[in-house]
Amino acid sequence: MDYRIEKDTMGEVKVPSHVYWGAQTQRSIENFQIAQDINKMPKEIIKAFAYLKKAAALTNCDAGVLSKEKADLIGQVCDEILEGKLDDQFPLVVWQTGSGTQSNMNANEVIAYRGHVIKGGQLTDKEKFLHPNDDVNKSQSSNDTFPTAMHIAAYKILVEVTIPGIEKLRNTLAQKSKDFMQVVKIGRTHFMDATPLTLGQEISGYVSQLDHGLRAIRNTLAHLTELALGGTAVGTGINTPSGYSENVAKHIANLTGLPFITAENKFEALAAHDAIVEAHGALKTVAVSLMKIANDIRLLSSGPRSGIGEIFIPDNEPGSSIMPGKVNPTQSEALTMIAAQVLGNDVSVNVGGAMGHFELNVFKPVMIYNFLHSARLIGDGCVSFNDKCAVGIQAIEANIKKHVDNSLMLVTSLNTKIGYYKAAEIAQKAHKEGTTLKEMAVKLGYVTPEEFDQWVVPANMVGEIK
Amino acid sequence: MDYRIEKDTMGEVKVPSHVYWGAQTQRSIENFQIAQDINKMPKEIIKAFAYLKKAAALTNCDAGVLSKEKADLIGQVCDEILEGKLDDQFPLVVWQTGSGTQSNMNANEVIAYRGHVIKGGQLTDKEKFLHPNDDVNKSQSSNDTFPTAMHIAAYKILVEVTIPGIEKLRNTLAQKSKDFMQVVKIGRTHFMDATPLTLGQEISGYVSQLDHGLRAIRNTLAHLTELALGGTAVGTGINTPSGYSENVAKHIANLTGLPFITAENKFEALAAHDAIVEAHGALKTVAVSLMKIANDIRLLSSGPRSGIGEIFIPDNEPGSSIMPGKVNPTQSEALTMIAAQVLGNDVSVNVGGAMGHFELNVFKPVMIYNFLHSARLIGDGCVSFNDKCAVGIQAIEANIKKHVDNSLMLVTSLNTKIGYYKAAEIAQKAHKEGTTLKEMAVKLGYVTPEEFDQWVVPANMVGEIK
Amino acid sequence: MDYRIEKDTMGEVKVPSHVYWGAQTQRSIENFQIAQDINKMPKEIIKAFAYLKKAAALTNCDAGVLSKEKADLIGQVCDEILEGKLDDQFPLVVWQTGSGTQSNMNANEVIAYRGHVIKGGQLTDKEKFLHPNDDVNKSQSSNDTFPTAMHIAAYKILVEVTIPGIEKLRNTLAQKSKDFMQVVKIGRTHFMDATPLTLGQEISGYVSQLDHGLRAIRNTLAHLTELALGGTAVGTGINTPSGYSENVAKHIANLTGLPFITAENKFEALAAHDAIVEAHGALKTVAVSLMKIANDIRLLSSGPRSGIGEIFIPDNEPGSSIMPGKVNPTQSEALTMIAAQVLGNDVSVNVGGAMGHFELNVFKPVMIYNFLHSARLIGDGCVSFNDKCAVGIQAIEANIKKHVDNSLMLVTSLNTKIGYYKAAEIAQKAHKEGTTLKEMAVKLGYVTPEEFDQWVVPANMVGEIK
Amino acid sequence: MDYRIEKDTMGEVKVPSHVYWGAQTQRSIENFQIAQDINKMPKEIIKAFAYLKKAAALTNCDAGVLSKEKADLIGQVCDEILEGKLDDQFPLVVWQTGSGTQSNMNANEVIAYRGHVIKGGQLTDKEKFLHPNDDVNKSQSSNDTFPTAMHIAAYKILVEVTIPGIEKLRNTLAQKSKDFMQVVKIGRTHFMDATPLTLGQEISGYVSQLDHGLRAIRNTLAHLTELALGGTAVGTGINTPSGYSENVAKHIANLTGLPFITAENKFEALAAHDAIVEAHGALKTVAVSLMKIANDIRLLSSGPRSGIGEIFIPDNEPGSSIMPGKVNPTQSEALTMIAAQVLGNDVSVNVGGAMGHFELNVFKPVMIYNFLHSARLIGDGCVSFNDKCAVGIQAIEANIKKHVDNSLMLVTSLNTKIGYYKAAEIAQKAHKEGTTLKEMAVKLGYVTPEEFDQWVVPANMVGEIK
Repeated sequence: MDYRIEKDTMGEVKVPSHVYWGAQTQRSIENFQIAQDINKMPKEIIKAFAYLKKAAALTNCDAGVLSKEKADLIGQVCDEILEGKLDDQFPLVVWQTGSGTQSNMNANEVIAYRGHVIKGGQLTDKEKFLHPNDDVNKSQSSNDTFPTAMHIAAYKILVEVTIPGIEKLRNTLAQKSKDFMQVVKIGRTHFMDATPLTLGQEISGYVSQLDHGLRAIRNTLAHLTELALGGTAVGTGINTPSGYSENVAKHIANLTGLPFITAENKFEALAAHDAIVEAHGALKTVAVSLMKIANDIRLLSSGPRSGIGEIFIPDNEPGSSIMPGKVNPTQSEALTMIAAQVLGNDVSVNVGGAMGHFELNVFKPVMIYNFLHSARLIGDGCVSFNDKCAVGIQAIEANIKKHVDNSLMLVTSLNTKIGYYKAAEIAQKAHKEGTTLKEMAVKLGYVTPEEFDQWVVPANMVGEIK
Repeated sequence: MDYRIEKDTMGEVKVPSHVYWGAQTQRSIENFQIAQDINKMPKEIIKAFAYLKKAAALTNCDAGVLSKEKADLIGQVCDEILEGKLDDQFPLVVWQTGSGTQSNMNANEVIAYRGHVIKGGQLTDKEKFLHPNDDVNKSQSSNDTFPTAMHIAAYKILVEVTIPGIEKLRNTLAQKSKDFMQVVKIGRTHFMDATPLTLGQEISGYVSQLDHGLRAIRNTLAHLTELALGGTAVGTGINTPSGYSENVAKHIANLTGLPFITAENKFEALAAHDAIVEAHGALKTVAVSLMKIANDIRLLSSGPRSGIGEIFIPDNEPGSSIMPGKVNPTQSEALTMIAAQVLGNDVSVNVGGAMGHFELNVFKPVMIYNFLHSARLIGDGCVSFNDKCAVGIQAIEANIKKHVDNSLMLVTSLNTKIGYYKAAEIAQKAHKEGTTLKEMAVKLGYVTPEEFDQWVVPANMVGEIK
Repeated sequence: MDYRIEKDTMGEVKVPSHVYWGAQTQRSIENFQIAQDINKMPKEIIKAFAYLKKAAALTNCDAGVLSKEKADLIGQVCDEILEGKLDDQFPLVVWQTGSGTQSNMNANEVIAYRGHVIKGGQLTDKEKFLHPNDDVNKSQSSNDTFPTAMHIAAYKILVEVTIPGIEKLRNTLAQKSKDFMQVVKIGRTHFMDATPLTLGQEISGYVSQLDHGLRAIRNTLAHLTELALGGTAVGTGINTPSGYSENVAKHIANLTGLPFITAENKFEALAAHDAIVEAHGALKTVAVSLMKIANDIRLLSSGPRSGIGEIFIPDNEPGSSIMPGKVNPTQSEALTMIAAQVLGNDVSVNVGGAMGHFELNVFKPVMIYNFLHSARLIGDGCVSFNDKCAVGIQAIEANIKKHVDNSLMLVTSLNTKIGYYKAAEIAQKAHKEGTTLKEMAVKLGYVTPEEFDQWVVPANMVGEIK
Repeated sequence: MDYRIEKDTMGEVKVPSHVYWGAQTQRSIENFQIAQDINKMPKEIIKAFAYLKKAAALTNCDAGVLSKEKADLIGQVCDEILEGKLDDQFPLVVWQTGSGTQSNMNANEVIAYRGHVIKGGQLTDKEKFLHPNDDVNKSQSSNDTFPTAMHIAAYKILVEVTIPGIEKLRNTLAQKSKDFMQVVKIGRTHFMDATPLTLGQEISGYVSQLDHGLRAIRNTLAHLTELALGGTAVGTGINTPSGYSENVAKHIANLTGLPFITAENKFEALAAHDAIVEAHGALKTVAVSLMKIANDIRLLSSGPRSGIGEIFIPDNEPGSSIMPGKVNPTQSEALTMIAAQVLGNDVSVNVGGAMGHFELNVFKPVMIYNFLHSARLIGDGCVSFNDKCAVGIQAIEANIKKHVDNSLMLVTSLNTKIGYYKAAEIAQKAHKEGTTLKEMAVKLGYVTPEEFDQWVVPANMVGEIK
């Protein structure tokens, strides 16, 4: 490969001649040969850097510490990054310095050198028009840029991918709940037959879970709107012009269209990432909900002949390489695997969050990597589950009816008539002797056939239907 | 031991003659001989049952389905439970049925039989004035009472123990932050010397963490105010009188003085405990914060001679059984161990929450056990850390001054004067040759001594102090 | 309360007059008011201290640094502790100093002062015959005693409670597997009907899981046999007589009857508790197995009428406070809750294990607390599940037969005769039209009725039966 | 894009005309649009499939159920896969069916269709020489192939990447331990000054941790050698020729050069993945060790002027984008982030492992994805940490000497001369008054200066040096 020579404060480094990055990016590639094929710094972070570098340039220009020409050039390269034109210029992995300094410098170098080329320079020029540290990183430190990128990326993915994905599934389930609101079915508690409810009621529980989950996520957004930028090295804002923190946050809010503000306390914003921990706590809550919902749906659709078989879900693909004609609840499986992943990611986020020291938490990349992974999986997973499974749910009314009619737990409606103990006797003997409830109830002399028919009506046992 | 005979729907059971509990409690003791000495059902759940059983009796009485005499008697026993007079009547453990049915029946039996005795009956009477199922449990199921008890207990402990404990520590740290706001000290990032800040600024970050943590906890309270009571067996409210759900929630709100309401969706309230998962997500966020704060404080106080030694914390006890005169940061150790516990508890809560099926989650006891454990540990732990450590923090100004004066990172203030690269050269050579920054800066000819003294002033590097 | 005055190197402390403990124990009670009612230092640790204090006294006596009289007296009190006579003398909680120094001093004080009383002295005597530090703690530090107690307690509970509990359940399941080895039933994959196997084969998988789990636990015992004792303050063995490490380990091995040896590296033994982390890794593996087994058993026994209903498990108690006659798989629920607890405990152990620094890990109490909790729960839980559930499992042959006869997946045995695609066509059409496989196979003309009866025989589809 | 039409049992599917995959792979791409850019099925699984498909073909050929021509052709394509020539033919993601059926079919299709092309056919031929199900998948099911691939991939990565990586670091540390065995330094417990040890002794603890960790990993290999292949659909081995299980395991052992055997119980091998859970338990133990070691090394190297500064680690890159001349312990940071990741991955593995049901665990892809991730990160991370950090560790003897000379804990060696209490008094007063130990010891009259010099010799306090 062809190389050119780049320099940083430690000396010269050979860099592939055609790339925009410089010495520090190259050092990181060489120093961190860890899972380089599978753990690139997430693209959401790269784009977040583009927003914040542009915003910093604008703010520096406003403050008179950066020329308009330089600011415009920086902004132009940032736009290219946002358009995805420079995706291959960000080769670094998650497993680097815990402050993300090297990804910050990767951004600084690419912006400076690409800018220099746009302006007509050569990558091999010794002096370049834009300096990675003195221009692109002006009024910034890795210590405040990386956490700012974390919040931008986290907020954006939540509102653009995660929340819409959950809402899509929530709305489909709400419609299904409405559609099936009159379908009386057996309830199950402890996996055992219980009193009846309607299929619509059952599904309304899932809707309620997702509604609460969405609220839980939204509750955590406020902390994520707080940006560290302006804290620079340790939170004091050294080397920033007056008013910088507030102004740069405004620029980021303008560029992203999202309600970012400057963090009320910059020391916290650098030294801790509780906002990420807290928001991932909401994501794991949703993962817990999804595990429950997806499990129920596969159980309800189990069979086709020796399971529960109360709902039909779409057949999307042959289910077995050996068993012909088999169809499996594969979307439930993908979603429950996602839930398992998110529950583990939560622990990685927690451990990283707990181990910051003094003025800086240096588990930043691993924290945001897991956060973005979870947010993406939940968003994509809900959409997939929605489109390929939930929208196609149908009630299998014959099985539903058979189950509810057979149920011994209908006896519960006799509690208020003949007391719990006599009712229990009816159910136990009917179970033992394999009779219907009615047969046994009459045989034991506790009710007349007419009373039974009047009192034990599944459709009357499901409460008020909304 | 002396026994009497009690009966339930399965038959006769020998019960110690002097206890108020009955057949089902006794069965549970015998059937679940699991860690009986260490894992009793938490007392907060027992008290929550007292609130809800009393509220249910009042509501049933209002609705005309329970006599006033019975309702009053039930209420009287519940008051005894709340006063702690019947603590030894609740022998069951966490490791029972996952619906908590046996603890519900324990409450039903104790209330019924103690009530019978209050009314003048004997424990050996075959028929008792109050029936555990038909009276005390009227209009209820374990499936809605236990989750109601979970929410009552969880909400109460958060507002009575956890939040006040955190606030106490937060307020002490806020005062310390104010006290030390002018004490300029070296910053540390990556455990390495960085630009200065004040000790008060450093501590303000902890305050901000706890402020955000308190908000995170409070954000989760709304979901916990929702009570399952009225859902009975599967969420449909079978066997409840009209208006029961809303009325019983009002009674519970009155009795506890807390803003409980009836759950908007009872199916969710029985089948999922996302409210517990979500609220524990806030607790783990606080645990993460406490781990960071307690670690910093022990690191800052490390030494006394070969550590960092910038703050003094109280000597509470001899620290070593072998090293005379040793004093250790024991409160930090207790608090960080608590954080480790809470991070584990979170996973238990998540796993339990994820594995509900159909109309009922049957991981209720393990979920609330871990929740209450975490809430208690954080509350107690913050108070202990506050009283025995945080209130006594003092700055060791001599060490602080020595560290900041020696720091090579003061060179950062030259960035805007001579550029990052020359500044780096100064710092690197001073480090290598063991000189002061000033000596090297002047030697290299980048600044005059006068410029250095004017530009490199630690107290000017800490930003605006609020 | 009556008090006496005790002293330590920090000064005087008021101690309840009747207790054997002294100043440092009392300081800990006062300094760590954290969950004191629920989180006492586990009794297994107290007993382990008794073994090691006695062994240290014997070793010191052998080495000529402690008089025989003192050694005997120390041994005598240790025996009382082992007999449980001094249980109420150990009031400290888990949430203390992370080295467990205070529990070590609690042991030292109780042994010294109880010894003094046995010898005829008074608790109020200013000078006592045995000194907590200079005699009872001779040649020891908290830093090597507490980890030694951790290994003694951990090893003992594994071999006395955990392993026997698992083996008991394993043996019952092995017998059930044998009993049901000829009972052909439908297989289920993805919760969907699959090719048949026998109930005995299905259960043999659980046996294999437990066999592997037992091996996994046993693989971790070697690391636990290594004792830190002799490392004293930082691992160097300062203030120990020659040969002390090896000799004290031999005494502990003799006293406990277990194969303890001195740790090959004392620095690791104090600074890290990877042996606990590793062994808990085996416990969590077993927890994972138990979750699977207990879930299967409750699913197989689900119904009685609208579930799977292929096995019967014992009815141990009424299952519902509202649904008369309901019986639930409560032992499965206790066991799965235990599994959830152990999975969380694992994280607490990991976090504690990961956060040791320099010469000492100071998460010792929280690590061993969680370890002992898990070991106990698994042991007790397996016995309970065994005695109250597994031993009573019976096959419900009518349901089993119905399910296997109905199964569409029997078509798999036609793959090798007519190919996967034609077989799939048969199954799909039979499913769609609700016919039997045979009807459809013949209708489609792919086989004759005679061929079908010859080729599709469930009992021939279960492989070789061992 | 150009398409061709492929068919499976559900009908026709449009597939890109140039790819070797078929209908079922294409369905999976379309049905699981979840994180497709970042979560491809790990390449180690694809290669493991190549081994097992080749082995199955050879075994089928030996058994006379597959022609030699077909077997050879299958083997030839498998070799191409192993050489990486077909990497772009495996587009599926982790988030698919939980049995991995789709990745199994991806392998079947690519092998069949590529084989057909090698033989001279066209991808557009309606009938192809090799059939994905009837030939390539002969005597197999996804249910036994995917777990077989899991074990092959897991075992291989452990012995090829993880163990060698750990050993490399272990060996470097062992050498460093030897190099520094005479360098007496201060010990630190609770972050506080303690009695001395040598730097070599300190590092020997890390070596011991890794030695035990390697043993822990090796202990788990036996379970991983057991292969599910031969169990087919549910563990009974339906549709396999006689002797198939043992023979196919032998072929896999031959092809991989690793000691694979057929699983003793196929029901466990399909329905549970405790072997993965157990082995990941060893990985998390090593992660815990690495967290400790990497933390210590960054703390020991902290400073350069206001930290501990007892060791030097290599300067690999500029550490700060704002603070000139700053160098950070970046390799420690990468390694501790890796540890955080592995601790989270462990939970994902556990949750997946716990939630298998009946004859099949359907969390296979998420389990092996996390396992391979952890194994890779630990292996790569250790090598990076070794090469870029550990090999360059040097002792900073001046600081080390200063710390040990200042230490008050040297007083511990007076315990056996003057007793713990007097020794404590010396240390406490020296600390309070800022004197040396010797000054205070003499001033208090407890020792003469000569005695002090004779008794308090750091080099005599470090025990026997091996």
